[in-house]
Amino acid sequence: MLRCVSSLSFSGLLEEKILAAAEAGFSGIEIFREDIVGFPGPPEDVAALASEKRIDILSLQSLRDFEAVPGAERAWALTRAERFLDLTARIGSPMLVVCANTRADTIPDADRAAADLAALADLARTRGLRIGYEALATSAHVRSYVDAWTIVKKANRENLGLIINAVHSIAADADFGRLRDIDPQRIFLVHLADAPTARIDTRLLTQSFRLLPGQGNLPVHDLYGALAALNYRGPLSLEIFNDQSRALTPSAIARDGMRAFDLLDGTLKADRSPHSLVRDVAFVELACQGEDASQLERLLSQMGFVRTHLNRPGTIALYRQGRITLVVNQATAGLAHSFYLLQGLSVSAVGLRVEMEQFTKRTSLQSSKPGSEGQAKRTFDVPTIRGPGGAVFYLLDDDLDRQPFFDRDFTPVLGAAPSNALGNVDHFIQALVPNLFLSALLFYRSVFDFKSEEQHDVFDPHGMVRSRTVSNANGRVRMSLNSSLSHATTTQRFVEKSGFAAYHHFAFDCDDIFAYAATLDPRFAMKVPPNYYDDLMLRFNVSAELIDKLRRSNILYDRDSRGSYFQLYSRQLNGFFFEVVQRNGYTGLGAANAPVRMLAQSLDFETEHAFDL
Amino acid sequence: MLRCVSSLSFSGLLEEKILAAAEAGFSGIEIFREDIVGFPGPPEDVAALASEKRIDILSLQSLRDFEAVPGAERAWALTRAERFLDLTARIGSPMLVVCANTRADTIPDADRAAADLAALADLARTRGLRIGYEALATSAHVRSYVDAWTIVKKANRENLGLIINAVHSIAADADFGRLRDIDPQRIFLVHLADAPTARIDTRLLTQSFRLLPGQGNLPVHDLYGALAALNYRGPLSLEIFNDQSRALTPSAIARDGMRAFDLLDGTLKADRSPHSLVRDVAFVELACQGEDASQLERLLSQMGFVRTHLNRPGTIALYRQGRITLVVNQATAGLAHSFYLLQGLSVSAVGLRVEMEQFTKRTSLQSSKPGSEGQAKRTFDVPTIRGPGGAVFYLLDDDLDRQPFFDRDFTPVLGAAPSNALGNVDHFIQALVPNLFLSALLFYRSVFDFKSEEQHDVFDPHGMVRSRTVSNANGRVRMSLNSSLSHATTTQRFVEKSGFAAYHHFAFDCDDIFAYAATLDPRFAMKVPPNYYDDLMLRFNVSAELIDKLRRSNILYDRDSRGSYFQLYSRQLNGFFFEVVQRNGYTGLGAANAPVRMLAQSLDFETEHAFDL
Repeated sequence: MLRCVSSLSFSGLLEEKILAAAEAGFSGIEIFREDIVGFPGPPEDVAALASEKRIDILSLQSLRDFEAVPGAERAWALTRAERFLDLTARIGSPMLVVCANTRADTIPDADRAAADLAALADLARTRGLRIGYEALATSAHVRSYVDAWTIVKKANRENLGLIINAVHSIAADADFGRLRDIDPQRIFLVHLADAPTARIDTRLLTQSFRLLPGQGNLPVHDLYGALAALNYRGPLSLEIFNDQSRALTPSAIARDGMRAFDLLDGTLKADRSPHSLVRDVAFVELACQGEDASQLERLLSQMGFVRTHLNRPGTIALYRQGRITLVVNQATAGLAHSFYLLQGLSVSAVGLRVEMEQFTKRTSLQSSKPGSEGQAKRTFDVPTIRGPGGAVFYLLDDDLDRQPFFDRDFTPVLGAAPSNALGNVDHFIQALVPNLFLSALLFYRSVFDFKSEEQHDVFDPHGMVRSRTVSNANGRVRMSLNSSLSHATTTQRFVEKSGFAAYHHFAFDCDDIFAYAATLDPRFAMKVPPNYYDDLMLRFNVSAELIDKLRRSNILYDRDSRGSYFQLYSRQLNGFFFEVVQRNGYTGLGAANAPVRMLAQSLDFETEHAFDL
Repeated sequence: MLRCVSSLSFSGLLEEKILAAAEAGFSGIEIFREDIVGFPGPPEDVAALASEKRIDILSLQSLRDFEAVPGAERAWALTRAERFLDLTARIGSPMLVVCANTRADTIPDADRAAADLAALADLARTRGLRIGYEALATSAHVRSYVDAWTIVKKANRENLGLIINAVHSIAADADFGRLRDIDPQRIFLVHLADAPTARIDTRLLTQSFRLLPGQGNLPVHDLYGALAALNYRGPLSLEIFNDQSRALTPSAIARDGMRAFDLLDGTLKADRSPHSLVRDVAFVELACQGEDASQLERLLSQMGFVRTHLNRPGTIALYRQGRITLVVNQATAGLAHSFYLLQGLSVSAVGLRVEMEQFTKRTSLQSSKPGSEGQAKRTFDVPTIRGPGGAVFYLLDDDLDRQPFFDRDFTPVLGAAPSNALGNVDHFIQALVPNLFLSALLFYRSVFDFKSEEQHDVFDPHGMVRSRTVSNANGRVRMSLNSSLSHATTTQRFVEKSGFAAYHHFAFDCDDIFAYAATLDPRFAMKVPPNYYDDLMLRFNVSAELIDKLRRSNILYDRDSRGSYFQLYSRQLNGFFFEVVQRNGYTGLGAANAPVRMLAQSLDFETEHAFDL
C-alpha cells in the first residue's frame, strides 16, 4: 500500500506542504483546492514542483454536492464539475475526488446519482482522468462505502472508482467485512484518520477531531488489516486536522504521519516478536553542577543510593540501588551539560535496554535516526534517539556495565554495597506543551512500541492536567504523558521552567515502604496535607491504625480491584522529584492521588525553599 | 432563587474559592470533598471562614455509589456514609449530596434504593442534616430526576429531597415538563451547567465539557424557566469545569458565574424590552503618535474619511464618513495613550449608543461597574465599561455630538464635507487568548445582551482559528470573537502584539464597492492572491466579467441563500486593518473568505513593509 497524505493535513503554504511530504518519504500527495488559492504561480507550477520534489500528485480535493441535485441545478453542477476537471488536469493530478452530496435536497435515487457520475466519468475520460467517489457519514443518502459502491457499480465506468474514508465509515457504522465484496482494483484511494472517540455527533467527529491513526481510539487498524487481507495495493492517504496538529510545522506533521503508518504496519505484522521491543530502563542521567549537585547527592544518599562508580575525570558518578542506576553528570561539556545550562538540574537522558536488532529493523527508525541530536558529545558511546520535547534516549543492547566502554571509562568506588530497598524504576512522567501531546503519544507508540491507555483529566489546584499512560509489553517501562493549557498548573510551570525533556518525576518500587520511610529524614519527604488522611477514611474501608501509619510517614494510599498502592514523594529539586511506591497487585499510577500531590507541590513551589536544610 | 456555586467550579485553594464566591455576591457555596483535603485547618475552620465571609455553606459534595449495593457491601456503605455525615456536620453544612449509584453491580430495585436512602436520612436527622439525592445520566438505574423522584417519594423522609442536575437531565433526555409533578419544597438544590452540545457521549458530556449557562448550547434556560414557573425558591448552584475555566482565577470564574445568572434572568424577564439594549456603534477610537499617526491619517483620507473636528489642544481629531466616526487620538496622556505606549497604533476604545436607563438597571452592571478602569483620564466624559481582554467601551445615550461636552471640547474643522461612500460600521473582530474565549462570550451575551451564533473553525495558513459571531437585536452591532491555540496564526500573532483590547479589524458598509474601489490607490488595498479568482469559478455560477471586475479591484466575493457579498481589505497598520463590504441580502461575515484573507495577511506580516509608500 502506498503511503500518501492530503495537503489538508498540513498547515503552512502549499510549497512547504509538498516539500515536507516529499522529504518525509510519502509517495503521493492530494492537493486540497483551497491550497491552490494561496499558491503563487499558475496551477501548472504545482505539477512542476511535485515532479521536481519526486512526489506524485494523487488527486484534487474535492468536488462536493455534485450528484443528484434538483433538475434546475443539474446544468450548473456539470459546468462546475468540468471546471474542477480542468483544474485537476492543470495540477497534473490523475484523479478528482467527488464527495457524496450532503445537501438536504439531494434526490434520493441511486440511479440518478449513478447517471450523474457516469456523465462525469465520461467527461473525465476525454481528459485522461479518473473519478473517485467517496461516501460521507454526513451525506443525505450515501453515508457508507457500501452505498457508494452500489452507485459506482451502477454507473459502470472503468475510470470511476471508490474512495473509502476511515472516519466517515466508522461514523456511519460501516462493517469493514463488506470490503470482501469489492474488487480491490475498483478502490482508487483510502482516506485514513483517527478520532478520540466515535461516541460523538457525526458532524463534530468528522469535521473537528481528526487525529493521525494511533493518536485516537477508532478501529483504524481493522480497516488497515481488511485492506491488507484484500491485497489492496493502492494509495492510503492521511487526512487529518485538529487544533494541535495545525499548530505544528509541516515537517513535524509529515514525520508524525510516517510514524502513524509505521505503527499500522507494526500492528499488522504477523511475525512480530512477542517480546518487548524496549525491555527496561537501564539508567537515568541527571545533569547538575555545584550546589545543585550537592543537594542532589544528599537526597540520593538519604534515599539509600550509593556511589559505586566514577569516570576517570571524576565528573560522572553512578549511584546505584537494587537494579536502578542513576548517572549524576557534572561534566562541564557535552550534551548533559547543555541541558544543565539551559534549565538547571534536570534529567538529561534516559537509557533504555532494547532488542537492538529488532529496533534498528523497524520502519520507524527510517524516519528518526539515532544520533540525530547533532554534534554535542554524549556521555556514553551507544546509539541515541531524540524523543518528544527534545528528550534523549540512550539505546543499550545490555546492561550499562556490560558495554565495551564501561571498564575503560569507569572505576569502581570502594565503599558500602548498595541496599536493595528500592528495586526498579516503576514509572516516570514527562510534562509536555499541549501542542506536542499527540505527537509524543505517537512517538512512544510507534517508535518504542508502547501501548497506551485512555486519557484522563487530573484536577491540579490551578487548572486541569491531561494525562495518558503508555507502557511496554512486559510492563517494566511505564510512563505518563502530562500536559496542561493552564500556565499555573504544576505540570505547565515545570514545562516552562524546563524547556527540554521535561521529566518531572521518576518513581522507584519498594517492597516495604514503611520500613523504607523510617530510614528517611522527614525533611526530604514531601509533606502531605493532614486532611488527606481524614479523607482516606471516606474513600476506603481501612483501619485507623493503617491511616495513622500512613500519616506518620507522609505516605499516600490507593486501591483498585486488584490490590493496594503506597506512594511516598521526595521534595522537589528545581521542580524535579522522586517517588517511592509499593504495589500489592495494584496496576495504576496513583492518579487518584495526583491532585493532592500537585497541591502539596504547588504549596512547595510557592515557598521554593525545598532544600534549605 | 438563590445564586450559589460549587467549590468544584473554581481552581485554586478552598480559602480563595470561598473568598471569591462571597465577594462576587453568591449566597451559598457547596464544598467539594477533595477541596477539604488541601485546606490547612480542621474542617470546622471551613465553617468559620464561610461565616466570616458571610456566605452559606450549602452542601458537602458528594457521597457516591451508596444505595442498592450488593448485600455484603451494605454495612461498609453505611459506615462510609456516616463518616460523610460527620464531615458534613463538621464543615457546618446542612446537607449532604448523594449521587445515584453508577456501579454496574447496583441492585436494580427502587425499593432497595429507597430503603437505603431512608436509613441514611434517619442517620442524618439525628445530626440535624438533610440528604439531597441526585440522578446521574451515567448511573446504572437512576438516570433522570424522574427516576430519583420515584425513589425519594418511596423513601418518604422529611429530610430527604431531590437534587436536579441540568446537564445530567439533558443527557438523560429528561422532560422538564415533568417538574410540574414535583412539590418544589422537595427540591433541595439544582445544579446548573451548560455544554457545547448534547450530541456527544454521556460520560464525556457530563465529565469534561461543563460550561457556564450561556457559554454552550444546551437548553438550560428551559430548566430555569420551568423552575421559575414552579415557584422554586431554593438554591441554584453552578457546577462547571473545563480546560478554559480552570485556567482562570477564582474571582474571574465567580464574576463569569454571576454574569451567567444575569443572563438567565434576562432571558426569563417577560417585561424585557424588545428594543436593542446596545443600539449601534457611536465611534471607534484609535490611539497613535508620530509616524503611525501620519500613516493612519493617509489611509483614512484615502478611504474617504474627512477630518471634521479637532479638540482644543489639537491632539484629538474626528474623522467622519457616512454615519461613521473615527476618533484619532494623539494625546500624550490618558487612557488611549496608555494603549499606544503598550502596543503601538491600535483601537483604544469603542463608543456604543445604548438604552442607558435599561443598561444601568440590568443586574449585570452590578457585577461590572462602569469606569472601573482606574485613574487614567478618559477621552470623553461618559460612562465606560471594561470588556474582555481589557477592552474599553464608552456608553453613550445619544450621538457623540449631542453630548454636553462636545461643543465645549471640539471645534469644527473647515473644509470639504465627508462623502457617504461608506455608511456604517458593519462589523468588527476581536482577537482573544484562548482562555478568555468563553469568558468573552458570556460578557457580550450577558452585559450587552448580544445573541451568539454557533462556533466555527477557520483554517489559517499557520493553524486553526476558532470563531464565534455575536450581535445585538437590531443587527447593527456585529462582532466576531476569534481565538487560536497556535502561535503562528494571524489571530494569535495579533493577540501577542496587542496585549489589550485586540480589535484586529473594523468593517464598514458601502453601497457600491466597485465605484469605491476605483477611488482607492491600490497600494493601500490588501493584495488578493491571483488564484483566488480562478477558484471562485469553482465555487459560484458567476460570469467571467464579474470575476474580472473583482480581480481588478482586489475584491473578495461570497454568497449565501439570501444574496451576495463583496469584501475589500486595507493593508495592515501594526496588524490592524479596515474592511469595506457591500452586502446584497447576505447575512454572514464572509467566513468562507477568511482563510484567503489570513493567507494574504500572513504574507504581508512576513514582509512587514505595509506602508512604505
